[in-house]
Amino acid sequence: MTEIQASGAAHDSLRAVQWLGDRLHLLDQRKLPFEELWVDCRSASEVALAIRDLVVRGAPAIGIAAAWGVVLAAQRGDDLQKTMATLRAARPTAVNLMAALDRMHASVESDVDAAALASVARSIQDEDLAANLAMGAMGAALIQSDSGVLTHCNTGSLATSGFGTALGVIRAGYASGNIVRVYADETRPWLQGARLTMWELQRDGIPATLIADSAASHLMKSGKVQWVIVGADRIAANGDTANKIGTYQLAIAAKHHGVKFMVVAPSTTVDLATPTGDAIEIELRNPDELLGYAGQRTVAEGAQAWNPVFDVTPHELIDVLVTERGVITQPDAAALRAVFGPDAH
Amino acid sequence: MTEIQASGAAHDSLRAVQWLGDRLHLLDQRKLPFEELWVDCRSASEVALAIRDLVVRGAPAIGIAAAWGVVLAAQRGDDLQKTMATLRAARPTAVNLMAALDRMHASVESDVDAAALASVARSIQDEDLAANLAMGAMGAALIQSDSGVLTHCNTGSLATSGFGTALGVIRAGYASGNIVRVYADETRPWLQGARLTMWELQRDGIPATLIADSAASHLMKSGKVQWVIVGADRIAANGDTANKIGTYQLAIAAKHHGVKFMVVAPSTTVDLATPTGDAIEIELRNPDELLGYAGQRTVAEGAQAWNPVFDVTPHELIDVLVTERGVITQPDAAALRAVFGPDAH
Repeated sequence: MTEIQASGAAHDSLRAVQWLGDRLHLLDQRKLPFEELWVDCRSASEVALAIRDLVVRGAPAIGIAAAWGVVLAAQRGDDLQKTMATLRAARPTAVNLMAALDRMHASVESDVDAAALASVARSIQDEDLAANLAMGAMGAALIQSDSGVLTHCNTGSLATSGFGTALGVIRAGYASGNIVRVYADETRPWLQGARLTMWELQRDGIPATLIADSAASHLMKSGKVQWVIVGADRIAANGDTANKIGTYQLAIAAKHHGVKFMVVAPSTTVDLATPTGDAIEIELRNPDELLGYAGQRTVAEGAQAWNPVFDVTPHELIDVLVTERGVITQPDAAALRAVFGPDAH
Repeated sequence: MTEIQASGAAHDSLRAVQWLGDRLHLLDQRKLPFEELWVDCRSASEVALAIRDLVVRGAPAIGIAAAWGVVLAAQRGDDLQKTMATLRAARPTAVNLMAALDRMHASVESDVDAAALASVARSIQDEDLAANLAMGAMGAALIQSDSGVLTHCNTGSLATSGFGTALGVIRAGYASGNIVRVYADETRPWLQGARLTMWELQRDGIPATLIADSAASHLMKSGKVQWVIVGADRIAANGDTANKIGTYQLAIAAKHHGVKFMVVAPSTTVDLATPTGDAIEIELRNPDELLGYAGQRTVAEGAQAWNPVFDVTPHELIDVLVTERGVITQPDAAALRAVFGPDAH
């Protein structure tokens, strides 16, 4: 694994997706923070199930897990085309999953040797970590001293190969001394902020305060946060960004209060084939996720619920997009084409 | 009790605060929707505890409960000044509590007879129901046909003497046929929307869909709601309104999407002694309410949380304020003074 040297590395102690040579070792994110249970996947269909059931989650992490799923299929002699179709269907919104599988697919065409495929999967994983460290440094450089920041969902080591995207910027910004406190949205219904981000931040000694999702605007009005920093599951060609449900609402509130809004994601999240956010498929999950928690029902029987788990933030509400290729301020179609288009250098 | 005749009365079947002559009978809102447990309060200090611990909640309902608390104290021969101070301190944000106690206090000065005080408390309770029915009719008249509406927290029969404030408008609008679906915010941390509003709406046969608090903007963008309709705990002289945490965020999002924003509250909620929303005390409750879900801990030990349970919506974001005295569009200091000031007719 890539050696971690970037600023903020002291505040990054977790690797939730681990390849053990014949199996994929996943920290079960459904059980955190109370049980650190690891799940071993020995086939691609087990990996697909782990992605669908949120054992592993976070756009970069599911891409990496899917890549290792293809390696497992090659080791077992499974049909690789069918395997990739199964993995691709596990979750619809994050494009990193598709990008990782496209890269594995290109390798499959030239070589179906499991060891060769493993070296591609290893590259995907290592490059993700390197991208996160680079993004952390670039994003943190934008943050003035004595800043509070607000983040949503979990974009940390649990959601990536390590360090994190938005949470990587926060780790680096805390290490540099400019970020003094992190506010984490609870992130209903799955509580990624409450369960996962708070746990990561506490574990790494970064001062963190949990808030209800609906307290974000009241927090912004109080002047306690200067930046909202979030990840992304897919970035359309015009800069519109799909991310965890609630991100759009934060962006509207940030604009209203003059709080800056930063999206941090590896370039594999950019999907030039999707022209605008309107074309991004938004995953609807089981309404039961909203009707209770941890098996305990909170809503009367027979109730209906609507459970979209992503929304789209239009690029007009995004001040800064950070990828490992650099910082784009006021992202739009022209700016993205210049950095990610066919003629980009 | 006042006979219910207004439109929408068929969809109103619940009375959660009941005076039984020698005790106050309260439907325990902590246990709903799974247990319909009633709590009997036989002293003012038991009433104060029930208010503080959210056995009874909702600005009008806690005012009514406090009035009956004074009657209990008079029946027992307790010190009435001390009693009123205790009740007043039970919760800080809702002004209805203070208004009800001010009215009881005026009666105490002229007459400490428990029966006479009971007739004042009865008037407070009956006038609240009448106000709700009037507001329901006036608010519903503003809603065009085939509308979806979004509400926050619980403002129904559980929060009032009956029928509800915002939920009263929704009941009346559904009865008139113009409201076709209600979306209810979950309302973290206490889940008033998930537990209470969904239960009331289901019980009265009104089509309702639960959403996560952070899905409200995505819902508005979808075009499924034309109005956000909420209650209020205190309305300052300039029209700024304190209400459940998250209301402010909804108002910002509604303005962004061109969705109309209606506040519905009895005139006892208007506090001309509070010049603007900045002067309203915002109750901070125990962070533990955020660190778990339905009694089950969700966040790692040692985590910090910030749990303001109200926020302030500035009057510029409010399209319509409905009280029993009429409809005020674009509420501001001049408009409120004309309706509620010393020279109002």
